[in-house]
Amino acid sequence: MNELINLDDFERAALAKLPAGPRDYYAGGALDEITLRENRAAWSRWNLHYRVLRDVSGPDFGTELLGMSIDWPVIIAPTAFQCMAHPDGEVATGRAAADSGTAMVLSTLANKPLEQVAAAATRGLWFQLYVFRDRGVTRELIARVEAAGCRAIAVTVDAPMGGQRERDLRNDFAFPATLAATTLMAASARPANALAMDGAFMSYANAMFDPTLTWKDLEWICAQTRLPVLIKGVVRSDDALQAAGHGARGVIVSNHGGRQLDTAPPGAEVL
Amino acid sequence: MNELINLDDFERAALAKLPAGPRDYYAGGALDEITLRENRAAWSRWNLHYRVLRDVSGPDFGTELLGMSIDWPVIIAPTAFQCMAHPDGEVATGRAAADSGTAMVLSTLANKPLEQVAAAATRGLWFQLYVFRDRGVTRELIARVEAAGCRAIAVTVDAPMGGQRERDLRNDFAFPATLAATTLMAASARPANALAMDGAFMSYANAMFDPTLTWKDLEWICAQTRLPVLIKGVVRSDDALQAAGHGARGVIVSNHGGRQLDTAPPGAEVL
Amino acid sequence: MNELINLDDFERAALAKLPAGPRDYYAGGALDEITLRENRAAWSRWNLHYRVLRDVSGPDFGTELLGMSIDWPVIIAPTAFQCMAHPDGEVATGRAAADSGTAMVLSTLANKPLEQVAAAATRGLWFQLYVFRDRGVTRELIARVEAAGCRAIAVTVDAPMGGQRERDLRNDFAFPATLAATTLMAASARPANALAMDGAFMSYANAMFDPTLTWKDLEWICAQTRLPVLIKGVVRSDDALQAAGHGARGVIVSNHGGRQLDTAPPGAEVL
Amino acid sequence: MNELINLDDFERAALAKLPAGPRDYYAGGALDEITLRENRAAWSRWNLHYRVLRDVSGPDFGTELLGMSIDWPVIIAPTAFQCMAHPDGEVATGRAAADSGTAMVLSTLANKPLEQVAAAATRGLWFQLYVFRDRGVTRELIARVEAAGCRAIAVTVDAPMGGQRERDLRNDFAFPATLAATTLMAASARPANALAMDGAFMSYANAMFDPTLTWKDLEWICAQTRLPVLIKGVVRSDDALQAAGHGARGVIVSNHGGRQLDTAPPGAEVL
Repeated sequence: MNELINLDDFERAALAKLPAGPRDYYAGGALDEITLRENRAAWSRWNLHYRVLRDVSGPDFGTELLGMSIDWPVIIAPTAFQCMAHPDGEVATGRAAADSGTAMVLSTLANKPLEQVAAAATRGLWFQLYVFRDRGVTRELIARVEAAGCRAIAVTVDAPMGGQRERDLRNDFAFPATLAATTLMAASARPANALAMDGAFMSYANAMFDPTLTWKDLEWICAQTRLPVLIKGVVRSDDALQAAGHGARGVIVSNHGGRQLDTAPPGAEVL
Repeated sequence: MNELINLDDFERAALAKLPAGPRDYYAGGALDEITLRENRAAWSRWNLHYRVLRDVSGPDFGTELLGMSIDWPVIIAPTAFQCMAHPDGEVATGRAAADSGTAMVLSTLANKPLEQVAAAATRGLWFQLYVFRDRGVTRELIARVEAAGCRAIAVTVDAPMGGQRERDLRNDFAFPATLAATTLMAASARPANALAMDGAFMSYANAMFDPTLTWKDLEWICAQTRLPVLIKGVVRSDDALQAAGHGARGVIVSNHGGRQLDTAPPGAEVL
Repeated sequence: MNELINLDDFERAALAKLPAGPRDYYAGGALDEITLRENRAAWSRWNLHYRVLRDVSGPDFGTELLGMSIDWPVIIAPTAFQCMAHPDGEVATGRAAADSGTAMVLSTLANKPLEQVAAAATRGLWFQLYVFRDRGVTRELIARVEAAGCRAIAVTVDAPMGGQRERDLRNDFAFPATLAATTLMAASARPANALAMDGAFMSYANAMFDPTLTWKDLEWICAQTRLPVLIKGVVRSDDALQAAGHGARGVIVSNHGGRQLDTAPPGAEVL
Repeated sequence: MNELINLDDFERAALAKLPAGPRDYYAGGALDEITLRENRAAWSRWNLHYRVLRDVSGPDFGTELLGMSIDWPVIIAPTAFQCMAHPDGEVATGRAAADSGTAMVLSTLANKPLEQVAAAATRGLWFQLYVFRDRGVTRELIARVEAAGCRAIAVTVDAPMGGQRERDLRNDFAFPATLAATTLMAASARPANALAMDGAFMSYANAMFDPTLTWKDLEWICAQTRLPVLIKGVVRSDDALQAAGHGARGVIVSNHGGRQLDTAPPGAEVL
């Protein structure tokens, strides 16, 4: 009996290897997890009305994305603290992305240094940016992202405050003290950042990230970099239009994996 | 493991502490409990199409409600006989409401004297009024409500007859003889009220409350008081319009928590 | 704990008292029982958008139905072979109907003589008519129905052939040899009818009932009697219009309780 | 208790007799089996709004299909490797079809020789054609199909590549080495075909069948035969129109039983 056939199998096997805290941090959503569930269910309600007799030999799934060429039209979404799952953390993810011919988005809250991940993710790396209250930290981070050869910056806009993730609250979950958000802390020597990280995502996010962000700040970010800037976490077409008007090169339709605002609509429905 | 994270946790823990009779009185609905279930399910079918980049620092959920200022836009709905759950009953509820910065609605069938609850609910108290066949009782009650400093009167209009609550029938449930509807009985010395209370809600309601009420009676109630009057239990827009035309200052969209007419539409759908 | 509060309780308790054959004959539907389930589910999807402040004292549910006055607007549908459930059979049902202030419809396949049931059902009796291949049997039956004081005839039109009731097939169910379709057999001395009854409904129906019926036959039936004639088993508005055009005084919207054509639409939806 | 009343009973009993590999090959679908489930569920959501009083005596379900007369309007769909279920394989199926008065479609991947099946399927036989990369094999097959007296050819167009059938992958399923696709291999002496068959459907299909097929190839097929040609596996009306324009005499609406592209729409919905 082959046990590892599809993504569900791998997810099940991987979660079984983790202690409750990290497992639930990775797998959980906000509040009642309505959006978490609907995110998947909504896709299964889509029907593919396929066409026939179209010559599908040598299918080519390759595409170009903001000047970056990938072999198939999926890139790896950013997730924080990947070293909780495996010591190679984001470097392993970058390597896997490259091996399969696609790109990766690296979280601001990565455990592995940005430069190491960039070296592994040879088919392209984007950087997911949380905007800090301290604009100095933010600017230094952007500069380092450019220097490391990242191809785009995805600014998260659906987490002005940390999501209420009840599984984490039940587990008294805190990011492990033995792991650091290396990229972030190397970019800034400010000890406050390191200290605040000693807790759950919600506390950290509320302490560090800037909840005052508006469209003007998006313009400020675009002005700091020659890289294309996208905003991540959009579920409305009017917000997508605004993004284009304020300098974004694209939007990433997302509800943060159901981890921020519960009852947010699934991507498969708003697309 | 933190056990008490969300409202479901508290509900579960609280119900586990109660004997079957009060537990089912609080938790049950009418007939097949279709509306009881749908009341919650309907909310979870709503999607919040949130906006991004709007400066959510220092969010202010405060609002003004009929001249009363509260810190967040939810007030506590009236429920009867709260001393079955805890000896402090409605006084504790009023205190909790005030502590969280909001108001409370006190049931006609409260166990604690209106004045004690008013003293605790310092951020505002409304009074939920059942209209008695005996208009004298009703008028005395309104006068006392005004004297105690209540800010509004919510007349229940979806319980002209008691709901058929099958859990109560199965349990042979009767309000405990050791508890009195203090507010009500102090306002009126009529012993019939006290006697009739010795039974289930359905029997009591059918004996005491006036099923002949019409829009004219709403006008009569409005004429008895300088307080704003709302009607509670409306699920139709034409009824809301009628209410405005007969002196009501507002309607409370409600189906009595699914406890009166089963298959009544959920508030989340008719809103 | 009160065990018998609602109809579900009574149904459960009653079915528990019966052997498998009669129990499944009463409770089952045709084929996969999709319609059987949907018949109930469809009602629970209806919402009652009730009105408030309408004076519901002394509610009067009474109505007049084809000249017959009943206290509440529900009459008892016809079901066959009620003596399988209780020795008093249809007589008990007629008595219960009368006690509750309403009428009953008696099946052609009743076990108790029509006249006895008529004597018990003092608030009104209708007769459900299966049209036999033998028009003589049919005519004699109609004459007897009139003589017994029935107030209307409901011609079943959704059973030109017997439904495939799989529970009956699994149970090898046959109507008990000790019970007779008294009304039918007394009305006609033809032994073939008695013999054919020694089997399941499907075999009997296919042998005895006339599958060639058309709208012309409805006219023939109307011509045999001064009683109002309805047709029972209609799920389409065009059929209802046709019925009116061919002499019927009404239609009974029904899919034979989900016992004839599975996937027929529920009454609650076609109404 | 009669155990074998309906198709579900027979399916359950038959699957219980098979080892896991063939059982799951017959019963499984592609990927998450969403389409497999929906194919059945969609039918049960249809309502039959039947008409009444239409004379249904001596019902005649017979019809004519591309010049072939059958007693009821269902023919047997093609399935591969029927000898895994029973040594008589497709010959038994053909005999059953004939006995019930209808036709059968024989798979290219049948175990029994085409001519034997044609002799058994006396009420008509169609041939389901997979188009091989090797057009010689294809042409020889068509010639043999004509010679055997088949009445039509159904070209499968929804399997340009083998479906990802996860049950087969879990079971390491391969067609049994002791069974051959007799029709196919007798028609062509090419050993590559025999070798490649020693594996799962996906590997075989990908090695042998032509994924480059377009509407022009349909014209080529039509030119090779005087038999009517249909295409099987269509779920879109525009494809049906194209088919007519390129010589097909009909389309078979199908998603390959949910075995090819998961989330393909169910036939009951696209019809």
